[in-house]
Amino acid sequence: MKKVVPLQNLINQFERLPGIGHKSAQRLAFHVLSMNEKEVQAFADALTEAHSKIHRCEKCCDLTDEQFCPICDDPARDSSTICVVEDSRDVMAFERTHEYNGVYHVLHGVISPLNGVGPEDITVKELLARLSDTNVKEVIMATNPTAEGEATAIFIARLIKPMGIEVSRLAYGVPVGADLEYADEFTLLKAIEGRKKI
Amino acid sequence: MKKVVPLQNLINQFERLPGIGHKSAQRLAFHVLSMNEKEVQAFADALTEAHSKIHRCEKCCDLTDEQFCPICDDPARDSSTICVVEDSRDVMAFERTHEYNGVYHVLHGVISPLNGVGPEDITVKELLARLSDTNVKEVIMATNPTAEGEATAIFIARLIKPMGIEVSRLAYGVPVGADLEYADEFTLLKAIEGRKKI
Repeated sequence: MKKVVPLQNLINQFERLPGIGHKSAQRLAFHVLSMNEKEVQAFADALTEAHSKIHRCEKCCDLTDEQFCPICDDPARDSSTICVVEDSRDVMAFERTHEYNGVYHVLHGVISPLNGVGPEDITVKELLARLSDTNVKEVIMATNPTAEGEATAIFIARLIKPMGIEVSRLAYGVPVGADLEYADEFTLLKAIEGRKKI
Repeated sequence: MKKVVPLQNLINQFERLPGIGHKSAQRLAFHVLSMNEKEVQAFADALTEAHSKIHRCEKCCDLTDEQFCPICDDPARDSSTICVVEDSRDVMAFERTHEYNGVYHVLHGVISPLNGVGPEDITVKELLARLSDTNVKEVIMATNPTAEGEATAIFIARLIKPMGIEVSRLAYGVPVGADLEYADEFTLLKAIEGRKKI
């Protein structure tokens, strides 16, 4: 069967997005056809605009459309504490706690020799330059609790410690609201090791 | 926290699509940022192009970017049999069988008094005009096997029968590969009623 080219194009475009299968791509494409012209234009503009305007913050490497990101730009934030995360989504996750008042540093990845990602491929150099320039008291390593995240945290901590800056790591333990029965043994072990007096 | 406007815009646009929650919208937006400029432009163009170029086929009301859809335009298709479906996705589903060689008529909805959809809101008029103009021998009512799909099929069948055209309805029964244990009683009843000699 000959296909309707513009429709097939749109379905293909949606199908290339992560987590979108053929059926979902079809549904999204038909939804776009049911939108009005202004809405479709707004969607298309949002795509190109986000892509062209967004770049890395000159301080923390998080994504922004200005020279510095809103967090680095906020004088109320405590710039003497830097939370080092893997990517921008982690910044959003910490910001949702509404409690952390320090700043961030976004690595844009983790060191992963198996995938050919070395320290020079993530923003380690930018972090070190930032630490030597400014008055930072503590760096919190908040990479993911995976083997690669852990290795990256230890690698960076070793580089920072000689600078006389305190380095800490996120606490391991059982997640709030979880069922102990389903916790894996490593998490339980870490939770026992890290137990606190009450 | 002040947000990065172009990024937030893009996340909001994805979030408005059906079946996309906030987390997925975030993931899709970050994926777009990781695409190269050409890919993003192609995506944006696919959106606006599909929306501006696609309209209904003048014969069958299916979606196309030309006067007639590829199926109506194909001289090898048997135009004396019309399969009446609810929307374009149903056409795609039947085409995947690679067996049906007739043409289609897309209703773009079903009659649903509860949702304020009457016969004049779907393409019943276009179907009747088409039947009186051309030499159609059989109309297959292939609306969904739901209460509304069934009612729509019966409504349209009553209009067509006086024209001396044969009207049929999709067979009801147990789906191929299904487990009888989990079939609902209506489906089983229909399967027994429609049993065939072997």
